[in-house]
Amino acid sequence: MTRFHLAAALSALAIPHAAIAHVPATLAQAADTALENDGIAWDFVEGITTEVGPRQAGTEAEARGRAWAMRWLAAQGFARVAEEPFTMDTWIRGEEQAAITAPFAQRLVVTALGNSGATGPRGLEAEVVYFPSHAALQAAPDGSLAGKIAYIGHAMRPTQDGSGYGFAGPARWTGPAIAARKGAAAVVIRSIGTDHHRGAHTGGTTFPEGVRPIPAAALSNPDADNLERMFRRAAGQPIRMRLVLTPRQLGRTASGNVVAEVPGRDPSLPPVLLACHLDSWDLGTGAVDDAAGCGIIAAAALHVGRQGTPLRTIRLLFAGAEETGLWGSRAYAEAHRNERFAVGLESDFGADRIWRLDTNFTESNPALYRQLAAAVARFGVAPSREVATGGADLNVIREQGGALVDLQQDGTRYFDLHHTPEDTLDKVDPVQLRQNVAVWTQVVGILANTAGEFRPAE
Amino acid sequence: MTRFHLAAALSALAIPHAAIAHVPATLAQAADTALENDGIAWDFVEGITTEVGPRQAGTEAEARGRAWAMRWLAAQGFARVAEEPFTMDTWIRGEEQAAITAPFAQRLVVTALGNSGATGPRGLEAEVVYFPSHAALQAAPDGSLAGKIAYIGHAMRPTQDGSGYGFAGPARWTGPAIAARKGAAAVVIRSIGTDHHRGAHTGGTTFPEGVRPIPAAALSNPDADNLERMFRRAAGQPIRMRLVLTPRQLGRTASGNVVAEVPGRDPSLPPVLLACHLDSWDLGTGAVDDAAGCGIIAAAALHVGRQGTPLRTIRLLFAGAEETGLWGSRAYAEAHRNERFAVGLESDFGADRIWRLDTNFTESNPALYRQLAAAVARFGVAPSREVATGGADLNVIREQGGALVDLQQDGTRYFDLHHTPEDTLDKVDPVQLRQNVAVWTQVVGILANTAGEFRPAE
Repeated sequence: MTRFHLAAALSALAIPHAAIAHVPATLAQAADTALENDGIAWDFVEGITTEVGPRQAGTEAEARGRAWAMRWLAAQGFARVAEEPFTMDTWIRGEEQAAITAPFAQRLVVTALGNSGATGPRGLEAEVVYFPSHAALQAAPDGSLAGKIAYIGHAMRPTQDGSGYGFAGPARWTGPAIAARKGAAAVVIRSIGTDHHRGAHTGGTTFPEGVRPIPAAALSNPDADNLERMFRRAAGQPIRMRLVLTPRQLGRTASGNVVAEVPGRDPSLPPVLLACHLDSWDLGTGAVDDAAGCGIIAAAALHVGRQGTPLRTIRLLFAGAEETGLWGSRAYAEAHRNERFAVGLESDFGADRIWRLDTNFTESNPALYRQLAAAVARFGVAPSREVATGGADLNVIREQGGALVDLQQDGTRYFDLHHTPEDTLDKVDPVQLRQNVAVWTQVVGILANTAGEFRPAE
Repeated sequence: MTRFHLAAALSALAIPHAAIAHVPATLAQAADTALENDGIAWDFVEGITTEVGPRQAGTEAEARGRAWAMRWLAAQGFARVAEEPFTMDTWIRGEEQAAITAPFAQRLVVTALGNSGATGPRGLEAEVVYFPSHAALQAAPDGSLAGKIAYIGHAMRPTQDGSGYGFAGPARWTGPAIAARKGAAAVVIRSIGTDHHRGAHTGGTTFPEGVRPIPAAALSNPDADNLERMFRRAAGQPIRMRLVLTPRQLGRTASGNVVAEVPGRDPSLPPVLLACHLDSWDLGTGAVDDAAGCGIIAAAALHVGRQGTPLRTIRLLFAGAEETGLWGSRAYAEAHRNERFAVGLESDFGADRIWRLDTNFTESNPALYRQLAAAVARFGVAPSREVATGGADLNVIREQGGALVDLQQDGTRYFDLHHTPEDTLDKVDPVQLRQNVAVWTQVVGILANTAGEFRPAE
């Protein structure tokens, strides 16, 4: 943020003829109060992680999560609480074990990647071929991995904006399919994570049409370190691994989105859409990813609603089945493709503080951007010229070319926890969670009381 | 440490007629160099955790650990490297699963305690009875737990001196037997640990003669938090848990101690005994508990030996089977009960820095204490009037009423890792490990070059 300070940023954006929202006089006070006292977001996260726990997409646990969330939303006073069902292809974890058998025998901590193939209950044993990166795997000759287990390492370091995920993520997203195409019997990757915990990071991988899914797993970072030290100490001796993974594809099962509203004064105006996802991976309790996001948007909508009926309706979308392929997001976009939305915001990057405000109308509607940025500066949120792209569950708005706001969260710690057994309530910092609610309250309150078009820049 | 500063402490101990060691002129420099450069301790910890990994007492993995350590000790130039075998009762872990089934269904992360009984492969399901502490369990009426699962919570907070273990430990050490006596079907405790990791803390529990071992497990701290929240949210509804634990007692199996020496100039003088333990629990790789201790004492002995042959022999005892009942320590004491030892020191509290020097001859041999304290003050080690009690593997010296030195390590972080899957190499801080080696080099060098009796205080 060198050479980009608030005052300069705001004055550069000060185009006088742009429209300004007329927000309730009490909105700023409501946001300040949320910073000190909000208990709504915490109540949601504590409640669903205690009473339901993990909510894997397409399973009975996700259905219990929907039922729990609908009861909670109704009890909080939301209107039009409803489920919007859809069906999906569902994969579930089975047994998972890995051990090095030679030359240095010991067990390693491993977890299957979503859509992994199975080894069968008796497992497989094969030599491990070491690739320090996704690029190194890509460079391997076709057929060179026949009958082998490919290991893909990579460097992933914490970044505030989460960009390390884009850098390291391909090892999980496409590495297994590349290894499969080169004939590998199985693939094991270093977890896509920035921690030193012993829990491995799961997450989906994709085997395109025509590529047979092979067994695919992630090692915890300490176990990946250990395996890489074995390669150094083995001095060329082959390293053999035994791997047992028994996941299954269940076929089509039921899932659903949950929606709820704070109705606005003018139902003819397109609503403000706030999104999060209700499903989680099965290893943790889905506190950070993404119960926190649902708690934040619900708390903000309630705080805004309590200042008087907003101009526009605020709609919550608690999407289902985000983790395993954005099933809920696609179903929502399909069902609501003819509906207009004023603007969309999503919370799906943990519970740590908001540090930057991005929109896709900063250039086209600078007065509105200026008003938003000025309103959240007191919470430590910086202005920006980055263009908001919206979260994974905002497909419906991206497909319309609609307006988006990204309240950027500090991601420094996020990939320590992401998709691991460590994603539990104790990892949510209540102080940072309240900062989130305060910023969301302020921003959603302004947006829901703004008339006219938001006009994203071309 | 208010009102207890080094200068005052040393002057109070300045009794003029006490004997002083005559140490090699290069000893202090060797210790300083170890602080900057020691690679021996790290090489041991990296090597054994990579090439062997977990080394559970009485198992084939512990035997591989002994063989690895003996090769390493011989390669480092130690003399009289030998195994001293013994046999022991061996318990091994099986399957372990726990889930709350009502009113809030979800799986919990659990690990069996050493010597736990088994549920059988089909498990058991029962109501959980909540006890916030060991004392609360003790107060339960006899027979009141018939057919129930007792849950024991407790508060354990990090302490630099590790005293939190003494405060919270009884929940594991004797809680399961108390629950068994009161008729419980099984017992689950909050992990004896100070972390927020998802790995539960194992460790031995004791069922005295006449008490039938019941299934006994620890929950990870986040899962214990979750269970306690369930009790609050259940508002009196019974909480039911399903538990599967299939550990087994294997009967007598082989274990052994490993010894090695740096021979002294005067073999008629009792040796200095340095102890650690080579076995570990099975969940981690035993890096912090206690490969680090063995690496530290070996590195110190080598650094002292490289300054010229010491007056006394320095003997290393890499004890076997410490974790499951001090089998190695007892075997060593039995085999060496007629041998005299000058003084004993043990490293078995992790790899963090040494912060205090305790002996049991501070009062009776103040000049020697003064010399030791002055020599290590530059490494940040404080003097003390606490009386050293020696580590678990120094039975042989305690039984003789011999001299002991405790180089107290900072335990603030130790019980985050203790007996968990997290005990892996990445948790060893190389800088703190080198401080350890430096302090040990300085202290062992002085002790090994001191003539006469060490005379512990009565």
